[in-house]
Amino acid sequence: MSAGTGGHLAGGIDGPGHLRALTSVVLDTLEAAARARGGPLPAGGPDAVTRRTTALAAPVLPEDGVGGEAALADLVRAVAEGAADPADPACVAHLHCPPLAVAVAAELAGAALNPSMDSWDQAPAAGVIEELTTAALARLVHPDASAPDALITSGGTESNLVALLLAREWAAGGPLRVVTGANVHHSVHRAAWMLGLPAPTVVACSDGRIDPAALDRALTGLAGAPLLVVATAGTTDEGRIDPLPQIARIAGRHGARLHVDAAYGGPLLFSERLAPQLAGLEHAATVTFDLHKLGWQPVAAGALAVADAAMLAPLSLRADYLNADDDTEAGLPDLLGRSIRTTRRPDALKMAVTFRALGRRGLGALVEHCVRTAHEFGRAVDAHPALRRRPGEIGISTVLFRPAVADALSDEAGDAVVAAVRRTLLTEGRAVLGRAVAEDGEGRRRLWLKATLLHPNAATADLLPLLDLVTAAADRAVSEAPASEGTDAPAAERLSP
Amino acid sequence: MSAGTGGHLAGGIDGPGHLRALTSVVLDTLEAAARARGGPLPAGGPDAVTRRTTALAAPVLPEDGVGGEAALADLVRAVAEGAADPADPACVAHLHCPPLAVAVAAELAGAALNPSMDSWDQAPAAGVIEELTTAALARLVHPDASAPDALITSGGTESNLVALLLAREWAAGGPLRVVTGANVHHSVHRAAWMLGLPAPTVVACSDGRIDPAALDRALTGLAGAPLLVVATAGTTDEGRIDPLPQIARIAGRHGARLHVDAAYGGPLLFSERLAPQLAGLEHAATVTFDLHKLGWQPVAAGALAVADAAMLAPLSLRADYLNADDDTEAGLPDLLGRSIRTTRRPDALKMAVTFRALGRRGLGALVEHCVRTAHEFGRAVDAHPALRRRPGEIGISTVLFRPAVADALSDEAGDAVVAAVRRTLLTEGRAVLGRAVAEDGEGRRRLWLKATLLHPNAATADLLPLLDLVTAAADRAVSEAPASEGTDAPAAERLSP
Repeated sequence: MSAGTGGHLAGGIDGPGHLRALTSVVLDTLEAAARARGGPLPAGGPDAVTRRTTALAAPVLPEDGVGGEAALADLVRAVAEGAADPADPACVAHLHCPPLAVAVAAELAGAALNPSMDSWDQAPAAGVIEELTTAALARLVHPDASAPDALITSGGTESNLVALLLAREWAAGGPLRVVTGANVHHSVHRAAWMLGLPAPTVVACSDGRIDPAALDRALTGLAGAPLLVVATAGTTDEGRIDPLPQIARIAGRHGARLHVDAAYGGPLLFSERLAPQLAGLEHAATVTFDLHKLGWQPVAAGALAVADAAMLAPLSLRADYLNADDDTEAGLPDLLGRSIRTTRRPDALKMAVTFRALGRRGLGALVEHCVRTAHEFGRAVDAHPALRRRPGEIGISTVLFRPAVADALSDEAGDAVVAAVRRTLLTEGRAVLGRAVAEDGEGRRRLWLKATLLHPNAATADLLPLLDLVTAAADRAVSEAPASEGTDAPAAERLSP
Repeated sequence: MSAGTGGHLAGGIDGPGHLRALTSVVLDTLEAAARARGGPLPAGGPDAVTRRTTALAAPVLPEDGVGGEAALADLVRAVAEGAADPADPACVAHLHCPPLAVAVAAELAGAALNPSMDSWDQAPAAGVIEELTTAALARLVHPDASAPDALITSGGTESNLVALLLAREWAAGGPLRVVTGANVHHSVHRAAWMLGLPAPTVVACSDGRIDPAALDRALTGLAGAPLLVVATAGTTDEGRIDPLPQIARIAGRHGARLHVDAAYGGPLLFSERLAPQLAGLEHAATVTFDLHKLGWQPVAAGALAVADAAMLAPLSLRADYLNADDDTEAGLPDLLGRSIRTTRRPDALKMAVTFRALGRRGLGALVEHCVRTAHEFGRAVDAHPALRRRPGEIGISTVLFRPAVADALSDEAGDAVVAAVRRTLLTEGRAVLGRAVAEDGEGRRRLWLKATLLHPNAATADLLPLLDLVTAAADRAVSEAPASEGTDAPAAERLSP
């Protein structure tokens, strides 16, 4: 065979030997690339990254191969030198976590064995591990339910899609109406569109959380239709948790089913101290849970918890090649009705390894570390004379702030400075900060820098350099924008790096 | 922190060091477990696997953790000793491939860096590698199109879902009608259901392939509605390729859009010798492609190729935290409209590494090996006095056959023997064979054993022991079923292992 070492398999008795040689190339390359990058992301911005990556990676599909080691060395170098690495404390833009080494090592085992979770004869033991893992998640979310269950998904978006799909099928009597807050993740709107449902009714938020009175009015206005209320436990922009007990009561009064998107906040349940923030979650029929955010898993690690296993009936499916009746009767477990996907990765394996490695207390301690760090970071912002924090409580581990110089400008010019600071730090390879629009103390919607603190080990001191990076970049942005001070001049273009 | 080594991160400069220790545990455990298993899957059947796995894995979420090394050693041992390993030549039930070591090693890098493909600031270089990879796939499928494109998906099921979604949006004038063959994968029906479309119209097949005349009649019957024809290039049951040139002509005549599910057959395009079998594919608007089948990638490695990038417009989406207008105008690439997922794994990385390692010729050689092996295996079945092969051509690399003793029984008892043979070999840990219902030479629908040959290195001689395993198990099944000979007695229950 002309394919050389590129054609060696990962499985069987010989596979680990092949993997030893190749993973050694990967790990050496990752280490060298992290040193070469020397920061949270590469400097130079999109054009420079494209140029350097293309030089190492193209042509991606040559006529003749270069061999396994060479391909790995080049492409892993490209992706690692050009990474935004969430293991760097200055990479805090998104719900994009640094994965635990133990979870990544478990991924290696899953990939080498390649079980597919759609039938027993492709995943004998992996199916059992998934069942144990989903049972543990189900019990965590619905501790008092008699038959809770959970599915593994590709992430919060798929969890929300399946939640709306299950609600649509539950609402056999007529088209389901979804009612949610202005703070909800876009995937809820997208799911309604995909499923052919009417666009969700959006109710107002106050301080980034659903206003219960507005929800009550919206549900009253839709009386007679089957209703699904979608609340959020950990909004993307601000980490806010909707008032779940009140929402559950209102939904119950209107006969509405409740779904909670706890993709961000769900893991608070691991911590005895923080779990009370999610009081009311147990009333939800379905809950989006996600361990590639506050769970430090490599993507994908989503889940959907349901209060009762019977709610999953709409997903049941018969395909003779995967779960023929006589095979099921003879005792072969039927795994097919556990997903909207068919072939599926053994994502439960890395979750199970992480759970066993850390235990509930260990995971809870990591969640508490992130929350504590965010509060310390918030206090440092409060104490910084050149920065202003978004007024109000910190949502889970998300801190919104902006340079004070932006407040001295018109709304538009001030927001342009904020956006420019973020892009400058990105382009210079110094920091990966997020952005969010949220109300200031006077109720005006302004653009803020966002720090989503998911690093489970970083000390607050590791994060403080971000503050001076921001103020310095803001000062430069303002000084380079001569026409913007105190005016409505459209500074955004000129400030763009 | 109480979490000990379990809390170490995979990223940064220190991550590779942590991963070296932990992946060493994984690889040692995989090797020992493959030896302990000693075959394609564990012996004992579902109950025994559940017992052994639970003993090593439960409780999955203890109060206190056991540490990273211990958790990995136990759980990787459980999943590997209890695996159905497609790297074993006797594991041939499904489109479930043994992954290449080079692709698995690339997964390790992707998991450690954890880029998320929904924004540039989470995946600077990974986004470029994805773009190069999808461009290569797009060009492979639609070589003469002016602006072909491709998306990365979680597999064939998601590709088919997105294809139907894009067709639904294209059919703005009225509800889309999907017309497909009885041979189509169940995911097409499921996608129509999820998207709120009418159930697909199913046209008859002849020899496992869509009958063009029946398709023409069905489209005529639906004249006036927006139409999508879904054809298959490599059916799950038989590996059959629908007559694509004829189907494309008929679809064109009716103004119907064409989608081809080439999840299995698509990689024939890597081989100059085999690519002509897919003639007509270039006429499809959308094509499901999948590299975790004939592409030896660990799951997930799906793709959807589109003839024109403009077809992807319905997926475009604006979310201020990921692709704000001013960021996009300032040059930050917008990655959000490339998927129905939000957070996404860098699955393109392992594909790109494999492509570069092997080249198109190397991949083509592996595909040719599988096809050649299937034909040699088919000839061995033909030459075996106690076996009968499903009459007709071999579809790609799928061989259907059954023990001749089953033919001496009633239809029902014969099929029960076939099902029992499969379950016996599964339970004894000797072989993982698939099953499929297909017509025999007299047009009767019978149950067959299915060998889907995806092993890129196994020689035909490695596969031949399967034949005697099957005949021996069949003889036992018949001898243990005293009432079944020549009667209609329901033998299935008694024959079940």
